[in-house]
Formats: sequence, C-alpha cells, structure tokens
Amino acid sequence: MTGTSLTGKFRLAVIQLQVTGVKADNLSRARRLVKEAAGQGSRLVLLPECFNSPYGTSFFSTYAERIPGESTQVLSEAARENQVYLVGGSIPEEDDGKLYNSCTVFGPNGELILKHRKIHLFDIDIPGKIRFQESEILSPGNSLSMFDTAFCKVGVGICYDMRFAELAQLYSRKGCQLLVYPGAFNMTTGPAHWELLQRGRALDNQVYIATASPARDETASYVAWGHSAVVNPWGEVIAKAGAEEGIIYADIDLQYLAGVRQQIPITAQRRDDLYTVTSVQEGSS
Amino acid sequence: MTGTSLTGKFRLAVIQLQVTGVKADNLSRARRLVKEAAGQGSRLVLLPECFNSPYGTSFFSTYAERIPGESTQVLSEAARENQVYLVGGSIPEEDDGKLYNSCTVFGPNGELILKHRKIHLFDIDIPGKIRFQESEILSPGNSLSMFDTAFCKVGVGICYDMRFAELAQLYSRKGCQLLVYPGAFNMTTGPAHWELLQRGRALDNQVYIATASPARDETASYVAWGHSAVVNPWGEVIAKAGAEEGIIYADIDLQYLAGVRQQIPITAQRRDDLYTVTSVQEGSS
Repeated sequence: MTGTSLTGKFRLAVIQLQVTGVKADNLSRARRLVKEAAGQGSRLVLLPECFNSPYGTSFFSTYAERIPGESTQVLSEAARENQVYLVGGSIPEEDDGKLYNSCTVFGPNGELILKHRKIHLFDIDIPGKIRFQESEILSPGNSLSMFDTAFCKVGVGICYDMRFAELAQLYSRKGCQLLVYPGAFNMTTGPAHWELLQRGRALDNQVYIATASPARDETASYVAWGHSAVVNPWGEVIAKAGAEEGIIYADIDLQYLAGVRQQIPITAQRRDDLYTVTSVQEGSS
Repeated sequence: MTGTSLTGKFRLAVIQLQVTGVKADNLSRARRLVKEAAGQGSRLVLLPECFNSPYGTSFFSTYAERIPGESTQVLSEAARENQVYLVGGSIPEEDDGKLYNSCTVFGPNGELILKHRKIHLFDIDIPGKIRFQESEILSPGNSLSMFDTAFCKVGVGICYDMRFAELAQLYSRKGCQLLVYPGAFNMTTGPAHWELLQRGRALDNQVYIATASPARDETASYVAWGHSAVVNPWGEVIAKAGAEEGIIYADIDLQYLAGVRQQIPITAQRRDDLYTVTSVQEGSS
C-alpha cells in the first residue's frame, strides 16, 4: 500500500493518442506519453481503443497480433518502467484463426493482469451517416473483465460495450469504483451520445468513468470524435480532451465516491425484492 | 384503433402545475389544464407528483385520501370528459392506516386502469443542501406498474424511482415504449441530475421518457426544480418547461422509435448469455 492509496486518492491519466497507419510510430508515441503521464504523478494510465492500428474492418487483420506480441511487449515495458497500471486501450488480436478487439492491462511490475475482448461488437447502420459492422471481421469476447489495483477495483469495457448498462451495473455491484472504456465513437454518435453515456453510467452506479478515444484524424476512413473524458460519481465531467492528441488528468477520490453514496444512497436502496441484475457467466479476474 | 394510432404517432401533454396549499384550487386548475391539453390534440396527459398537496412529509397525512376519493374522482371525470389517458401525477394515499405516494391512471372512459405506489422512497441527506426522509411517513409500493393504451404500452415510476435503472430496463423489456415519471426534484438534485437521468433512461432503453414536475414555488418548504420534459429514444430533449406553470407538448412517434432501434440495435445485441435483468416479482397490469 502506498501513501496515495491511504488517502483514498490517486491520479489517473487518459492518453488521447493520434493513431496513424504506422504501427511503430503508434507504439513509440504511446510509450513516450505513458512516461509523460507517469511523470505527472499518474498511477493508472489509459490508452485508446485500437491504439496501434487505424480503426476499421479493413485494417484489423493486417495489424492483428498474438498476445503476447510486439505491441503488448511495449505496453508491459512501459508499465514496468513507469511503475503504473497501464490499461492498453485495445489492439486487434489474432488467436486461433479468429480476430478480436482486445484490451490488455499491465501492472506496475509489467505483468499482464487482464485481457478483455470486446463483448458487444459494433454493428450499426444509420442511413446517410454511418454504417459499420465489426462482426463481419471480429469475434466477440465472452467474459466480464475486472482487475484489482492498490487503489480500487476497476471494470473494463471497450467502446460499444459502454452502451450496455448491465455491464456497468454488474461491475459496480462487484465492487468496481472505476470503469474504463477505451473507445472510438464517431462524428455521428460522438456528439450525440459519448458524454451522455459516460455521465449516465457514472451517476447510475455512483462510480468514476474514464474513456480514451484516439485523437481525431479527418483524413481517416473512420473519423473518431475524440473528447476523452473522466466523469465523477455525481455525474460531472471532471476532465475532458478536445479533438487533438493530448493527455488529460483526473484525481480519483474514493472518499468523495463514498460521500456521494452516503448522500444519495441508491446502492443501499435498490429493491432487490423486486428486480435484480445478474451475470449469467462469472467474469474473469 | 384510431387514426392517430395507425400512423404510430400521438400527442402527449405534460402539465407543470403550480401546486398550492389549497387542495380545491389544485384540483380545479388541474382539471382546467387537462381540458386545455386535450383541446390541443393530446391523447395522453401527465400531471406532476403530489399535484393535490404541497410536497413534504408534514403535509402528507393532512392531504391524504383513500382511492377512490375526492381527487381521483376529479381525475376520472377529467379523463372521461376529455377522452384522454390521464396519468394523475401522484397524491398522498391513505390505506389501512398507512400512507403511500400513489399515481393513478385513468382511461378515456374515466375508468381507473392503474395505481402505482412509489417503490423507492426518497431518503437523501446532502449536508448543507437538502435532507428529506420520505420513509419517516410513507410506506413503499411493491410492484412494477405498466398500462396499455391504444398507442403503446406505458411504464410508470414516481420521482426517485427514476434513479433506479432496473425499473426502466424491465419496463422496456416488457414492451413499454414510453415511461412516465411524475417527479419533484429539488434545487440541488434538479440542476445536477433531473435531465441527465431522463436522457440516460431514454438512450439506454431507446424509449420515450416524460416527466412532470410541479412548477417552482420559492416560498414552499420544498422548492421544486420544475423543468418538466420529454426525451426521445435518441436521448434528445424534445420538449421542456421552464420553472413556471404551463403545458408542454410532444409528439410520440413510434416509427421514429423503431428506426432508432434499427440503426443502433442494442435491444437485439444484448448478451443474454452473459447478464440479465429480471423482475423478482411480476408487476401489476
């Protein structure tokens, strides 16, 4: 236990990485920014969805790696060198002939402590705006994913996973006080829903929510909305990026979280005699 | 079936009533405004929480009535005279020595078609801001509450019930396309959470949400936030009151709702193999 955890506070950093088509550049810039975030006192660092590859079904097989592999090796070293928990956004993962959208989490010693494969594949069709069918290429994960830190328990989802309230409900019931969602919303769903979903998950479950998007690249086939953010358990945005590459910081305050739950005690007032949210299959971690 | 229902559209009205200490005035003004709303083509009309009585634990026993009683008689007549579905906000109900915060719903023939007793009593304590303990005086209801109309199925909650996501999730899974919440948020929780909760419930469940607050009365012991609203399944506020007495209107468009569910098909993409929301006790209606 560290002094930081005894006060119930720790600093979180979200890296809104500019992702390019050159994997080596993505990895080296991610590594440099993790170091910068750690230098600012961050104990947990979050990278965006698909941080080593452009986002798009045509790119996944080209950029896919096994785990462990080149990209996760960089993540492991970055975590160890900087003594941080590193939520490695996601990468296209190849395993046994199938592709997944997978998030790996590394502890301060560089050990892999979690792998989350995106549960809900992003299949939407908004005529004249955006059509995207991840399931044409990817296979879904089949587990909830939580990990313990020295500070609090953390639940992990990737992008579209955030639309499904049950996942956040289960994570918070299982003791998570922070939920992280690497994600790449687009120019249609981003302005409409990105922040609303985060604030709703935070308020309904009285947890912290952190999201990490790639920076916006107007020349990409899929243009990410950006606006990575951190929301507190009162539903307030406490840190927020624009569209550009950068790092945002927020202090996660577990005493503040406890205070919110005491003031509006919905976690104790739920009517378990009338309804229940249950996990059919217990998650990893 | 009416022409209105065949097009998949119907007009809803929310009455943001100025509630006073004079019950007869509250009833007569409510009746007049229901008539006005019906005159504008509304087929479903929503009144605020505690529309016949000031809101506060010190008032409930004084203003409480049995159901049927004086206030529900007025509601029944207003529904029948104007041929509308009337969601009668709520009133303090007395039954068998206990008090409840109860919403009654009347059909266009004036018949009582639903009674919802507030499930989640409002007990909060935000130091220096607001302390309120409904449970010191009231008993909770024990059922989910839905009713059918010629247009769609409707789920009912009262105020604090809206904070509990499970209720809305169950209503929408059981086929409700509109959820109504008479409610009286206050000057602390109103600006922080009132609209966010509505937009979150609407987006997460891809349903319409309508809320009815009393108008603001700065001289009351409990000052209501006002800002009654209607939110569409995309999470957009499509009608919104200020702080004053008035009626707001919105067209509930079930084809639009179906379109949203087709574009972002989360209702079909839920991972029932991983999690589930279930009602422990089946609701009324």
